[in-house]
Amino acid sequence: IENQQDATLAAMLAEVHYADVAEIINELDEDSATYLIKLIDSEKTSDTLTELDEDVREAILGNLSAKEIAGELDELDTDDAADIIGELPKEMVQEVISELEDREHAKDIVDLLRYDENSAGGLMAKELVKVNENWNVLTCVKEMRAQAENVTRVHSIYVIDDEGKLKGRLSLKDLLTTSTKTHISEVYIPKVDAVNVNEKPEEVARIMSKYDLEAIPVVDEIGRLVGRITIDDIVDVIKEEAEKDYQLAAGISQDVEADDSIWDLTRARLPWLFLGLLGGVGAAAIMGGFETMMSQYGVLFFFTPLIAAMAGNVGVQSSAIMVQGLANDDLKGSITGRLIKEMLLALLNGVVLASILLFFTWIWKGSFLTSLAISISLVSVTVVAGIIGTFIPLFLHKRGIDPAIATGPFITTSNDIFGILIYFSIAKVILGI
Amino acid sequence: IENQQDATLAAMLAEVHYADVAEIINELDEDSATYLIKLIDSEKTSDTLTELDEDVREAILGNLSAKEIAGELDELDTDDAADIIGELPKEMVQEVISELEDREHAKDIVDLLRYDENSAGGLMAKELVKVNENWNVLTCVKEMRAQAENVTRVHSIYVIDDEGKLKGRLSLKDLLTTSTKTHISEVYIPKVDAVNVNEKPEEVARIMSKYDLEAIPVVDEIGRLVGRITIDDIVDVIKEEAEKDYQLAAGISQDVEADDSIWDLTRARLPWLFLGLLGGVGAAAIMGGFETMMSQYGVLFFFTPLIAAMAGNVGVQSSAIMVQGLANDDLKGSITGRLIKEMLLALLNGVVLASILLFFTWIWKGSFLTSLAISISLVSVTVVAGIIGTFIPLFLHKRGIDPAIATGPFITTSNDIFGILIYFSIAKVILGI
Repeated sequence: IENQQDATLAAMLAEVHYADVAEIINELDEDSATYLIKLIDSEKTSDTLTELDEDVREAILGNLSAKEIAGELDELDTDDAADIIGELPKEMVQEVISELEDREHAKDIVDLLRYDENSAGGLMAKELVKVNENWNVLTCVKEMRAQAENVTRVHSIYVIDDEGKLKGRLSLKDLLTTSTKTHISEVYIPKVDAVNVNEKPEEVARIMSKYDLEAIPVVDEIGRLVGRITIDDIVDVIKEEAEKDYQLAAGISQDVEADDSIWDLTRARLPWLFLGLLGGVGAAAIMGGFETMMSQYGVLFFFTPLIAAMAGNVGVQSSAIMVQGLANDDLKGSITGRLIKEMLLALLNGVVLASILLFFTWIWKGSFLTSLAISISLVSVTVVAGIIGTFIPLFLHKRGIDPAIATGPFITTSNDIFGILIYFSIAKVILGI
Repeated sequence: IENQQDATLAAMLAEVHYADVAEIINELDEDSATYLIKLIDSEKTSDTLTELDEDVREAILGNLSAKEIAGELDELDTDDAADIIGELPKEMVQEVISELEDREHAKDIVDLLRYDENSAGGLMAKELVKVNENWNVLTCVKEMRAQAENVTRVHSIYVIDDEGKLKGRLSLKDLLTTSTKTHISEVYIPKVDAVNVNEKPEEVARIMSKYDLEAIPVVDEIGRLVGRITIDDIVDVIKEEAEKDYQLAAGISQDVEADDSIWDLTRARLPWLFLGLLGGVGAAAIMGGFETMMSQYGVLFFFTPLIAAMAGNVGVQSSAIMVQGLANDDLKGSITGRLIKEMLLALLNGVVLASILLFFTWIWKGSFLTSLAISISLVSVTVVAGIIGTFIPLFLHKRGIDPAIATGPFITTSNDIFGILIYFSIAKVILGI
């Protein structure tokens, strides 16, 4: 493909959506990627850049001059442009900004750079359509047409007062269905949801998805309209949030992808495995304390992986349900009630499983008492595991820590240790050693 | 609260957003909930109903007459109305539909009921703004105003031909910025993304989020425009999808919430725990085969939970990364390359962890050879676990099965068994028994 003529390639790429172009470029090596990026016509280049994987984009931008980068940023919405500038090396930032042709655009981008990436301010774009409450409809429509040129999707028209404070909105539907002779202050809807610039992205996502909003205005500390967040950015937030929780549950602590380097992947995984190692060493040490039982009741030691696995699985199940309940904010009732419910649930599951195990061990080893000891221990372990799995997420949540961290290796490890300890202690009592 | 006067309560509820009203009602018992629902004014009632938890809604609808339900459905968009009707008992459906006052609306709802819930047809709404390519702008604007009355959010204006086939779209922005004297066939954008009615919701979600779409038209088998899916429905699909994957990873097989009954929760959890039980029993049986080693090398048995936990954790980490990579469709390179990478990664992690363990065991038990045997086994187990964790999701994906089912108990269980087997086999060879 690389040896074909530029014109043919350019014509082919012109037919393809920029998200697909980005997918193709992600697969190429740095030189070919830069070559292709320069080939695409400018408006598409900038959109393609925003869709690229971060490391690929960094490599490509490294091969472009400040002037070339600025040319692409001029085509982008302020939020995407600010995101890209945020990734550039410090010495490039100043240069790129000074090369931006559209000075109004440059001002907006610089404004956005000031906000924390992990806040509503870091998500919002400056592009929006706003009208003054004191305007009449004629001025309003004229202004709106001018503003709409810069806005990819209009959604709502926001109404502000002379100080720039958000007063309400005009819906596009009203615009289509109302006569054009009405005054703004008479027709605007004074009720409008808005978020503060300092709000967390997850909270913005929760609000927008709860109220089915497609765009939400962002206001500063004194209520002035400073930007707007659209649902497509929120879809990304929701997906990232879900991926983070999923990875945490699997014991992967950083935002990594299958294609990251072995080193990055190791850093994300090793700490959790080390936690597991500690748990295993703890379990081994506990068993060392019961070593004397080995000669007569060696069979007890055969079931330690089973006990540990059960304790882990029950704990993870309980905590996963709690983590989701907390995230969706739909837990009802008291904590005590919840603990009792999880206990009953674990008891029910435990008794069913222990009965099966009792039957199997009895047939296998012929000793009813040993089998009974193992089974009763299993029931106790599942109940305790269920309680720990319920309690830890609640505890973390109360302390303001993301409970998602609890599911996975953390619960598994603590339940391994507790499980083995309970198992041998109860077995010891029942077998009368 | 329940003993206050109706008027006070009604006034209070009138101030609150329907999503918040729904949250309040979810907390109440059936009688109070029905009482409140009847108190709210009608337009809000219908919106509130769509936001309620499914079981609460069912209970409330059970207390309403077919005429009352039909009254609420008349206020709703076709997709929400069809969803609610789909939940009603069969004998009620006919009655409610015949009570619907708006016959056009009723026809649309009946149309929607025919589609599989788990398809684009089941997600779409009939409300949209469409214009014929042969109209002039004057007719077009007049028709659009009439149509817009029924559509909550306009998004795009779709252009169809005389047979109803989707030809393209008119953007709202064009409407604001173009002179009103142009002809439709001259101004419409012939490129428009659309999905087939039979497309899976996850695929629709993938397309809409990849191309940052806020609404997508749905066409039937011969290309006729039959409906429209908006991004708020897709946000729900994405969230449900993420919750399902998270629960599967935690060993919960059905869509349950923390507040579901103990019976529902048991059915969702017990099968996975049973799988874990089988794994544990398998591991115990394997250890039974190595029973003769117990007298001399009892310490080996102390580390079985550690080996099982490591095998499980490494497997879950590898599979989680694969599951996400497959879901996001961003895996590059060959399967062999991927397996080699996971093997190297597991080897690196395994060597680090085994070195720590070697040191600990040596100090604790004083036997270097036994410690070395345990550590070498641990490395082998992590490598095999990494390979299994990578391979199983790939295998399931190739066979058309959702790989998310692999992470969690499935991987943990198989890795427990393999881990213990490998551990004792290698230890046996090294210790020369």
